[in-house]
Amino acid sequence: MIKITLPDGTIREYAKGSTPMDIAKSISEGLARNVISAKFNNTIIETATRLNEDGALVLYTWNDSEGKKAFWHSTSHIVAQAIEELYPGAKLTIGPAIDNGFYYDVDFGDRTLSEKDFPEIENRAMEIARGKHDFKMRPVPKSDALALYKSQDNQYKVELIENLEDGSITFCDHDTFTDLCRGGHIPNTGIVKAIKILSVAGAYWRGDEKNAQLTRVYGISFPKQKDLTEYLELLEEAKKRDHRKLGKELELFTFSQKVGQGLPLWLPKGAALRERLENFLKKAQKKAGYEMVVTPHIGQKELYVTSGHYEKYGADSFQPIHTPKEGEEFLLKPMNCPHHCEIYNSRPFSYRELPKRYAEFGTVYRYEQSGELHGLTRVRGFTQDDAHIFCTPEQLDQEFKNVIDLSLYVLGSLGFDNFTAQVSLRDLNTPEKYIGSVSNWEKAENAILNAAKEKGLNFVVATGEAAFYGPKLDFMVKDALGRQWQLGTIQVDYNLPERFDLTYKGSDNELHRPVMIHRAPFGSMERFIALLLEHTGGNFPLWLTPQQAIILPVSEKHEKYAEKVLNSLENNEIRALIDRRNETVGKKIREAEMAKIPFMLIIGENEEEANTVSVRKHGGDDLGSITLAEFAGLVTKEINSTLKSF
Amino acid sequence: MIKITLPDGTIREYAKGSTPMDIAKSISEGLARNVISAKFNNTIIETATRLNEDGALVLYTWNDSEGKKAFWHSTSHIVAQAIEELYPGAKLTIGPAIDNGFYYDVDFGDRTLSEKDFPEIENRAMEIARGKHDFKMRPVPKSDALALYKSQDNQYKVELIENLEDGSITFCDHDTFTDLCRGGHIPNTGIVKAIKILSVAGAYWRGDEKNAQLTRVYGISFPKQKDLTEYLELLEEAKKRDHRKLGKELELFTFSQKVGQGLPLWLPKGAALRERLENFLKKAQKKAGYEMVVTPHIGQKELYVTSGHYEKYGADSFQPIHTPKEGEEFLLKPMNCPHHCEIYNSRPFSYRELPKRYAEFGTVYRYEQSGELHGLTRVRGFTQDDAHIFCTPEQLDQEFKNVIDLSLYVLGSLGFDNFTAQVSLRDLNTPEKYIGSVSNWEKAENAILNAAKEKGLNFVVATGEAAFYGPKLDFMVKDALGRQWQLGTIQVDYNLPERFDLTYKGSDNELHRPVMIHRAPFGSMERFIALLLEHTGGNFPLWLTPQQAIILPVSEKHEKYAEKVLNSLENNEIRALIDRRNETVGKKIREAEMAKIPFMLIIGENEEEANTVSVRKHGGDDLGSITLAEFAGLVTKEINSTLKSF
Repeated sequence: MIKITLPDGTIREYAKGSTPMDIAKSISEGLARNVISAKFNNTIIETATRLNEDGALVLYTWNDSEGKKAFWHSTSHIVAQAIEELYPGAKLTIGPAIDNGFYYDVDFGDRTLSEKDFPEIENRAMEIARGKHDFKMRPVPKSDALALYKSQDNQYKVELIENLEDGSITFCDHDTFTDLCRGGHIPNTGIVKAIKILSVAGAYWRGDEKNAQLTRVYGISFPKQKDLTEYLELLEEAKKRDHRKLGKELELFTFSQKVGQGLPLWLPKGAALRERLENFLKKAQKKAGYEMVVTPHIGQKELYVTSGHYEKYGADSFQPIHTPKEGEEFLLKPMNCPHHCEIYNSRPFSYRELPKRYAEFGTVYRYEQSGELHGLTRVRGFTQDDAHIFCTPEQLDQEFKNVIDLSLYVLGSLGFDNFTAQVSLRDLNTPEKYIGSVSNWEKAENAILNAAKEKGLNFVVATGEAAFYGPKLDFMVKDALGRQWQLGTIQVDYNLPERFDLTYKGSDNELHRPVMIHRAPFGSMERFIALLLEHTGGNFPLWLTPQQAIILPVSEKHEKYAEKVLNSLENNEIRALIDRRNETVGKKIREAEMAKIPFMLIIGENEEEANTVSVRKHGGDDLGSITLAEFAGLVTKEINSTLKSF
Repeated sequence: MIKITLPDGTIREYAKGSTPMDIAKSISEGLARNVISAKFNNTIIETATRLNEDGALVLYTWNDSEGKKAFWHSTSHIVAQAIEELYPGAKLTIGPAIDNGFYYDVDFGDRTLSEKDFPEIENRAMEIARGKHDFKMRPVPKSDALALYKSQDNQYKVELIENLEDGSITFCDHDTFTDLCRGGHIPNTGIVKAIKILSVAGAYWRGDEKNAQLTRVYGISFPKQKDLTEYLELLEEAKKRDHRKLGKELELFTFSQKVGQGLPLWLPKGAALRERLENFLKKAQKKAGYEMVVTPHIGQKELYVTSGHYEKYGADSFQPIHTPKEGEEFLLKPMNCPHHCEIYNSRPFSYRELPKRYAEFGTVYRYEQSGELHGLTRVRGFTQDDAHIFCTPEQLDQEFKNVIDLSLYVLGSLGFDNFTAQVSLRDLNTPEKYIGSVSNWEKAENAILNAAKEKGLNFVVATGEAAFYGPKLDFMVKDALGRQWQLGTIQVDYNLPERFDLTYKGSDNELHRPVMIHRAPFGSMERFIALLLEHTGGNFPLWLTPQQAIILPVSEKHEKYAEKVLNSLENNEIRALIDRRNETVGKKIREAEMAKIPFMLIIGENEEEANTVSVRKHGGDDLGSITLAEFAGLVTKEINSTLKSF
């Protein structure tokens, strides 16, 4: 008999050689119907794997991300089989699951695959799936494994196998197909009810552009046809909400080949949007006792040697900037903290003067591979809404709570209600990985956990995910495709105060080390605006939107009155403009809808006589004819419904 | 007889061989007493130089800058003689006049000169001066010149002479002293009535740090003892107004060795000051139809090859930034214009949409030798209040006038009444130096001249000083030492529209080239704030100053009332704080004076009872007890007296 520990802590005894499926059946028939993958003692296994020792078992269904991973990885085998049959001579390489589906990298030789080839692959793959073939793992001696792929002239698999140790190599079989594989499959192909090939892209073997170019075939699959239909609808909607598309339509930002990839140019409307967001945060930060500073975008290499950034990021990043003077080297700043440490160090502080909170909308530059760049979410230059708080260890608790309040205020005012939070703590088993005393770490971790609980955050704890310099709390939101992105962050840091020898004079007249908090409620202006675009589909909260109202005169006759209306709106601090073009009101309304302007104020004979405006909301609601005072009241009310005072 | 043309255009005849002094005497005895230098046919000569041909003659007195130059250069000979006598073996190199005085670079061997040595040099130099020795120029054959300095073992003079052409070499003698010299002296040493050695500094021979280090002896001299006394007083005052000193005292900015020289870090008070200046300009620019944009601080090298900046500045500047990708190179931006051109180029424009006015507080980086760096006036990174106007040639006239209005508004609101303007035009004799058609140049030059006249500017015309890409108008102000600095600039540009192939569709449906105007009313935030500090001595205009009022409670008892006063001030948008320290009011007042806070509001028993504040102005004026409403009125009135609406 073996002892199996289940996730809820219960321990059950089973006959040696029982499989996860046997165990599922012993728990409930329903679970057995749904279980598709399992993890035993931290290793992913199949549901048919025989268990021969005591251990901890987790069973996965489609609803678990590990379950989806097994499902999609298994589908990649099915699709690989279809490709091998349909394109004789195509060489398979690797086919992992990804966040949404899977891909398989294939060397098609001279052939190119295009969208019109997808249905044939999908159809053959579905035929295979319907065959209900079991996925079966088996160990293979290295020599046999090499022999198989050498006979197929597949240098990629040969290279993979050559790097594996004899005895650790396994193949997975299903139907007539065999693939080199470490495991992690669903029981059989029949569980897959819908397969869709989504796209193809170029990819280099092992990600190295010096290697051969392969075709990366992206796909996704589901246990029900209905799930696929829903997913394709989501994809369509996500395309409409893609911040790159909306950014172009709303004239917010652009990129230039000459300036360089990943370096956004903010157009007037985008720059105004950014400025409003910045002013919104500046106002709240001022109330919260922050002071703005301004620092340069470069620093001597020595600064980053002191901070440790050079050692950590130097080689993969923008390289040092030389000058006509021999030996002089500067670096583009990847972070603002070293500069803020130097500001703190520019004069002595007493404990009575702390906390000092230095804030800066600091633009930083980090090199990303061109393949990693994506709109505004992954760029090479971005502006952090950065601040560094220098406080005594005793003040950490309160400061952390204050920062959470500020972060919640920011997310709430912008309609991000569905964020999640992650608290990253140290791994107690590897104390050597962390800098700072154990008692300080305990203080900081408790401060974060208490603050997160007290503020009612919906958070997960990630043990071992802390940075080496301190624990942290991150806020995550999802983009239009459901992908999670980190936005705001709050990090405790014991490292930089040491490296920069920061001190304050305590009440005991001795010098002490302050603690540092790095924090950025937006994260970066670029990523935040990208997520905001996808989240709102470009319909920004009224207080933030570039143009709050557009005045549409029915004919040129009403231009004078239009000016009067504009003037009145401006006095009420409502951002508006007049569409003076010689076009029909119908066309003007359609274009204002496209531009996502929240209010259209139509004025003609009746409105001019009655001193009113006919108000139409974006999306079509007709609010009828109202006075300008009433309209101003309406705008104020709607603004106050989202933008709370801090 | 020869014909001499005087500056007023009159032509007089004199005997061949007459000297400038003879001619001065023929005009008036008074002039003859004061004339100390002269220029004949654009060459500086002595008053005793014999004139043997027709030509244009200008006579200079102490009141002319050329007169001062001759005076100070002559004094450098006198001081050199004193040094030679007092420090046998010291080797003289060069000794020119500078903006304020002169210097002489001397190789003192192992000796170091210090302040305590100055009186002895001054005394001996004054003794020589009182000897009334004539300065006499004489030609010397190259071999004799070399022989003299070789005999003195003076390798510096030898090197200078070796680079001169035989026949062009002259010496200047006075008393027992002889120096290699091109000329430009006053008649005799007796005119110099006061000599002061100001300082010594290290300097490299020919400015090259690979060469020997010399001692640069700075000095100044005057025709009256009283002038020297006044000058030393000015120096004292200038020291107090030095922006580097004030910036430190007022906690506006700092520098860090680790971040690097010439890269200012703006402290909270300085950053707030900057932001207020920026907001002030943003508001005016918005009214003037500008749109803000935001661009990155780097661009691909290709961008600057297109703009021509790389060819022009590449070698002497910050060097290209390499990345892990082979061949990829970026540059720190030295100017914002290329980025703005790429924004203009991101979509097509019709003539109806012009002018487009893109504004950005853009931080740029330019490498300066470390010896050239000076506080905030000469730095390696600075933020321009930049904008680029893209307009049709027909719009240039009006746009230029609008920019002058904006510039005058900026200078006026900040109390710079004593600025001068310079219009830089092309040299008609060298048309090949300029890009753009003659008719466009004429249009642009006329636009600038007309605008400058129409706006009543006090301006000088500098022919030949235009940039190769267009004419310009610069605004200059003086620092505490009377040195002129360029602040605002307005430049017409025909070059970048060509290089970036910028176009707009005209009313004829054809593509045309727009004209570009570069403009920056402040010039740069750094230099502007430096000059503003020196100009105001740190007493900023009330609307701009970091802290407008400070509340000084007489004792802790009045803290509650102090809070009430602060609250009321904040509601009136008056920036104030409370000095809560447990110190005497006397000490609080002294420190508020030091911090240059315009209003001190003292509150005690009487004030709290009467609901008033006792107001003391910076500098000592006592305004008595007044209500808070009266005080708010006072502040508004003083603000409105400088800050006009635009």
